[in-house]
Amino acid sequence: MTQVFKSQDIITPHGRVGGFLEVDAGKIVAIHAKYSGHYTDYSGYTLMPGFVDIHIHGWGRGSFAYKGDLSSIRAMTEDLPKVGVTSYLPTTGTMPNDFLERSLSVAATHIEEYRPELGAEPVGIHMEGPYINEQYLGLQRKDSIQQPSIEGFERFNQLAAGHIRLMTLAPEIDGALPLIRHLRDKGISVSAGHTAASFDECTLAINAGLNHFTHAFSGMKGFHHRELGVVGALMYNQHVYAEVAKQTGITIKPEAFDILYRLKTDNRMVMMSDCMGYADFPEGYEFYHYLRKETVVVEGGILKLKHDDGSVKEVNPQCYGEVADLEMSFLDSVKAVVARLDKGLESAAWLACLNPAVLAGVSDRKGSLEVGKDADFLVLDTELNLVGVYCQGVAQPLA
Amino acid sequence: MTQVFKSQDIITPHGRVGGFLEVDAGKIVAIHAKYSGHYTDYSGYTLMPGFVDIHIHGWGRGSFAYKGDLSSIRAMTEDLPKVGVTSYLPTTGTMPNDFLERSLSVAATHIEEYRPELGAEPVGIHMEGPYINEQYLGLQRKDSIQQPSIEGFERFNQLAAGHIRLMTLAPEIDGALPLIRHLRDKGISVSAGHTAASFDECTLAINAGLNHFTHAFSGMKGFHHRELGVVGALMYNQHVYAEVAKQTGITIKPEAFDILYRLKTDNRMVMMSDCMGYADFPEGYEFYHYLRKETVVVEGGILKLKHDDGSVKEVNPQCYGEVADLEMSFLDSVKAVVARLDKGLESAAWLACLNPAVLAGVSDRKGSLEVGKDADFLVLDTELNLVGVYCQGVAQPLA
Repeated sequence: MTQVFKSQDIITPHGRVGGFLEVDAGKIVAIHAKYSGHYTDYSGYTLMPGFVDIHIHGWGRGSFAYKGDLSSIRAMTEDLPKVGVTSYLPTTGTMPNDFLERSLSVAATHIEEYRPELGAEPVGIHMEGPYINEQYLGLQRKDSIQQPSIEGFERFNQLAAGHIRLMTLAPEIDGALPLIRHLRDKGISVSAGHTAASFDECTLAINAGLNHFTHAFSGMKGFHHRELGVVGALMYNQHVYAEVAKQTGITIKPEAFDILYRLKTDNRMVMMSDCMGYADFPEGYEFYHYLRKETVVVEGGILKLKHDDGSVKEVNPQCYGEVADLEMSFLDSVKAVVARLDKGLESAAWLACLNPAVLAGVSDRKGSLEVGKDADFLVLDTELNLVGVYCQGVAQPLA
Repeated sequence: MTQVFKSQDIITPHGRVGGFLEVDAGKIVAIHAKYSGHYTDYSGYTLMPGFVDIHIHGWGRGSFAYKGDLSSIRAMTEDLPKVGVTSYLPTTGTMPNDFLERSLSVAATHIEEYRPELGAEPVGIHMEGPYINEQYLGLQRKDSIQQPSIEGFERFNQLAAGHIRLMTLAPEIDGALPLIRHLRDKGISVSAGHTAASFDECTLAINAGLNHFTHAFSGMKGFHHRELGVVGALMYNQHVYAEVAKQTGITIKPEAFDILYRLKTDNRMVMMSDCMGYADFPEGYEFYHYLRKETVVVEGGILKLKHDDGSVKEVNPQCYGEVADLEMSFLDSVKAVVARLDKGLESAAWLACLNPAVLAGVSDRKGSLEVGKDADFLVLDTELNLVGVYCQGVAQPLA
């Protein structure tokens, strides 16, 4: 079925163009300057590629990393287009091995059952850990850290049916360097995160193929001018990607983003959400978020957010409208940061779409509005509110 | 007296040109493409502007900051051209007030007696302290810290006969902001150094006129992504100058230099030496250099360098040839860093010459080879060894 969408502002990697985006069988087949047949008129709106979230544990009504079952990942797939995400890497955490292994199988099952009518496409899996350094644990579980090994990874990837696309690890741990080489040989991206590596250890890892840094600045050895640490390595190695999460001022200061962005430019900076999906946390599972200063717990099917100040907020975890604002969404992160970018939304299309698609190994079909790629796109008004979201040409519900 | 110098490689702010540099009465009066009269032939050599060292306590046989007398500053003036420095700001340290006041008067006397036959031109004074924060003392004296005040500065500047051109201070200290405004109103540069300022305090200082950062990374609050500190402020505010000292790997890692240089570019990065002039330390004055792990002391007119490992090196402090290598020279710093710069020696002419001349307020006559400016220039062979040094057209002895 051919569909055509008209906009005077279609964001492509080669600039903004006006025209008619033609979609057939879920793919972009042409961008016409003129078109005389039937089309959907998005005049006055911007078309940009859908966001590719390569670091997301949960969203809306689903928390893959904490629940690890099919319903959790299906809920993520369903709820992600509502905030502009059209493809993603469901992201595991550093969790007990049996839970982790089950999660990988679940993700693989869902990846293979996926069709665009379900929502955002899970294009692979990001494993955050378990090969991390307990010195920079962040929100990961210390009791679930494992020693890196090629055999260990291969078992994970077998359970994942070969769908692992990105691994976050601490490159300074024994066994990490051979694993990095192994992963890169297989075309899998490797990111430094939750790491106490020295600058020189980072250099070795980059020489071995490490091509990304997970949540830049957070969960890593800081900068000093005589031992530059991981932060120094990610600033210095401008050709290596680095990701930042929500620009709320909670995780990193906007000016820290700016410094890194000036070094990385549009070509190597990545936005992601690192969302958790609190609403879907297992019953009774208490989780303390040290930055938000809240204990999150589901009790009797009700999600309670217990703040350190004593206040408690109750939420129905089954209702997307009630859980949508628990975390800053990918779209809101883009809105928050777009004015800081060199070319506004054009730059955002690199940071939020094409660069993460490259890291996920799917830039042949995701991440930009170009002929031959999937028709994953957003329709935005001038305030960057979503008017429409398409996954492979299939219009998605927005609420 | 007119002199003409021929070179196929004259470094100007507008690029490298070949031609004939014509000097009259100490000034560059023309750069001719062709010239038919008598000239000095520097074919095969590069002509570049002499270095402008805005942060130097001592050099060779003179230590102005530690000795504070006329012979010490005269020795600096005499010895600096030997390493390519043709103008400089003799730099006081945070020393007892009576010593400091005497030093300022001495510097003023020397500035006014200066003529090019004496050596490098002292174009003003840099005061490093006494308005600094004891939390980042570095090599400064805690007992000599003072509270910033306009009155205090005015007394200093009166003793200095109005020759203060740059002040390093801690902008977070009470009284610093009004002083910064006062200094900038008078056209005096203000630099943050030995400071525990927060990022926001730096922002206030920059808004008040602060236009430089002293020995970037060292002696200042470090970078953290939620409180960016002074290091974050100097990285973020790309339009504010920042200086780095010797690139030996002792003070800062070369990669830390690179990160900052990419942010500052040729336009806002400054090289200086921060040299001490150990050879001229007062008799019996023990000085422990925590980076070099050496105690330096003059005993019976002999300079002794007592290393922590027990070894002692003895040096004749009156002999330039023996003391020249005690510290890394400005020329050697340039040699060490030039390959890291975007445009090699052309970039170095910004970092080591024009930018510091701007900060010292003398860019109308120093810092670049342009018509109307002083004929302060270096003649360098292809390995950047000095073949000749001219201060206002006067050839200087090189040994």
